[in-house]
Amino acid sequence: MKRIPCKVFAPATVSNIGVGYDILGFPIYGLGDEVSINKGKTKGLVLKGVRGNPSIPNDIMKNTAGFAAYKVLEKLNLTEEPIELVLFKNMPTGTGMGSSASSAVAGAFAVNEYLNCPLSKKEVLDCATQAEVIADGSFHADNTAPSLYGGFVLIRDNPSLDVIKLPTILGLQALILYPHIQILTKDSRAILKEEVSLTDHVTQSGNLGGFIASLYKSDLNLLGRSLQDVIIEPQRAHLIPHFEEVKSIAMNEGALGFSISGAGPSMFALCANTSIAESIKEKAAKLYKKSKIELTGYISSINREGAIRY
Amino acid sequence: MKRIPCKVFAPATVSNIGVGYDILGFPIYGLGDEVSINKGKTKGLVLKGVRGNPSIPNDIMKNTAGFAAYKVLEKLNLTEEPIELVLFKNMPTGTGMGSSASSAVAGAFAVNEYLNCPLSKKEVLDCATQAEVIADGSFHADNTAPSLYGGFVLIRDNPSLDVIKLPTILGLQALILYPHIQILTKDSRAILKEEVSLTDHVTQSGNLGGFIASLYKSDLNLLGRSLQDVIIEPQRAHLIPHFEEVKSIAMNEGALGFSISGAGPSMFALCANTSIAESIKEKAAKLYKKSKIELTGYISSINREGAIRY
Repeated sequence: MKRIPCKVFAPATVSNIGVGYDILGFPIYGLGDEVSINKGKTKGLVLKGVRGNPSIPNDIMKNTAGFAAYKVLEKLNLTEEPIELVLFKNMPTGTGMGSSASSAVAGAFAVNEYLNCPLSKKEVLDCATQAEVIADGSFHADNTAPSLYGGFVLIRDNPSLDVIKLPTILGLQALILYPHIQILTKDSRAILKEEVSLTDHVTQSGNLGGFIASLYKSDLNLLGRSLQDVIIEPQRAHLIPHFEEVKSIAMNEGALGFSISGAGPSMFALCANTSIAESIKEKAAKLYKKSKIELTGYISSINREGAIRY
Repeated sequence: MKRIPCKVFAPATVSNIGVGYDILGFPIYGLGDEVSINKGKTKGLVLKGVRGNPSIPNDIMKNTAGFAAYKVLEKLNLTEEPIELVLFKNMPTGTGMGSSASSAVAGAFAVNEYLNCPLSKKEVLDCATQAEVIADGSFHADNTAPSLYGGFVLIRDNPSLDVIKLPTILGLQALILYPHIQILTKDSRAILKEEVSLTDHVTQSGNLGGFIASLYKSDLNLLGRSLQDVIIEPQRAHLIPHFEEVKSIAMNEGALGFSISGAGPSMFALCANTSIAESIKEKAAKLYKKSKIELTGYISSINREGAIRY
């Protein structure tokens, strides 16, 4: 079949969502990485360039987009296929918005699209998630799966990539606040205690169950009662300047819930409408301005499509 | 309004369901306790008798049916109302099938029915769950809520009784196997470690999420993949003779999942149809016969109604 050059977009994601450490995530609209694929002039996959971020390694095997793309070719025994890949690195790194996953999904998805989709979505997910290992050392799909599939995604089991698409509540808005400080996922993981009290496990399980049920029931009230992380947030909040103050602002303005996005430093709120999200964003901006930390805010409904080809 | 004597039934329940320690439960048909209410001859609530089990204390405040019934009257400022209560204690105690909860729900539900339902279902649940405290020292609704409400029930939060009814999959069958040995809930709780590893917490959370999603999706395959308890079952299984062997039998016969019912010693399987449940029951009976432990098996679809008035 004819190969047509293509360009794809893979969205930024909020993983963990407070109550689903390593097992929940959702993507947003308007922020994410892109990959374009063209026919190459020589055998094999070539990383033709990385646009937008000079700090990303221009080496196919050290860059999650290139690595994931290569894994697709390897699975298909097509590593000699002449392909040129360009990564448009639109997202800042180390933000807690799934930057490495966004590149990985874009890379794997783009090559599969270029080859007219010989791999299933789950196989593409596998390739993208393998690339996450080079980014932070662990095979976890809580950013790659929502970036690829769209919507709220539950990863029942990471090793076997048992991924379940959950429903989205119409109108639900996400606000992401990204303070421009850097936290590396591996450092943010390292501070977590290896043990959880049984009491906290029970509380968090109830909240996770309530959160998932709220999506199926379209019950914003239940979603709000459930969005309370008693395990991870208390351990990581101190890594993020002003976390407790911003959380207070968000809850006072009417957010349904507020917690850390991924490994941080980004934070997210889920809100019933955009005006609540806007007013939290505005007040948070004032707060960070005082302490001279740059803050970027993103407001979006839950991205339902995931990765797309233009 | 006229008070009409009544009799009610509150079903036996499977709590925990493997992946939802303290937060999940479902009731069955055909087994449970009953309470009848008649107008009394003297002021106040009188426990007129306990039928079927001479070991149950014939004292209104030491018996979960009487205590829960009293809590209803107390909430309504009607403790002087002349009421005679008879408890039909059909269920054996210390079985892991929610025996104390069944009595408690029957007591609270019956008095509320007799008084023409002045209390909401949640208030009745509160009274019944307070009675659980006299049975095993903790305020937990994972037996009382399913016995009262019917269907799969999630208790998002025990202290505030935030209870969510989950859907049931049509045709799903429960098998309960009750080996006639006694384990007290408080002993079974005492052996549990106070800590859970973060890894196990993540695994169990994925399974809990998958289990809840499977009910909404009517996905038996997902239900089966999700019904794997990595936290409680490994700690309690040794309390139940032949647990691992019966579990092997159940899984080989095609059960979707198999674990401990409540605090044990009862075990439960969820099955796609009755013939699978029947064949597990038969093979388990043979196994226990060899070691001269009596075994009773109950097969039922998920009870959707919960407590009922005749």
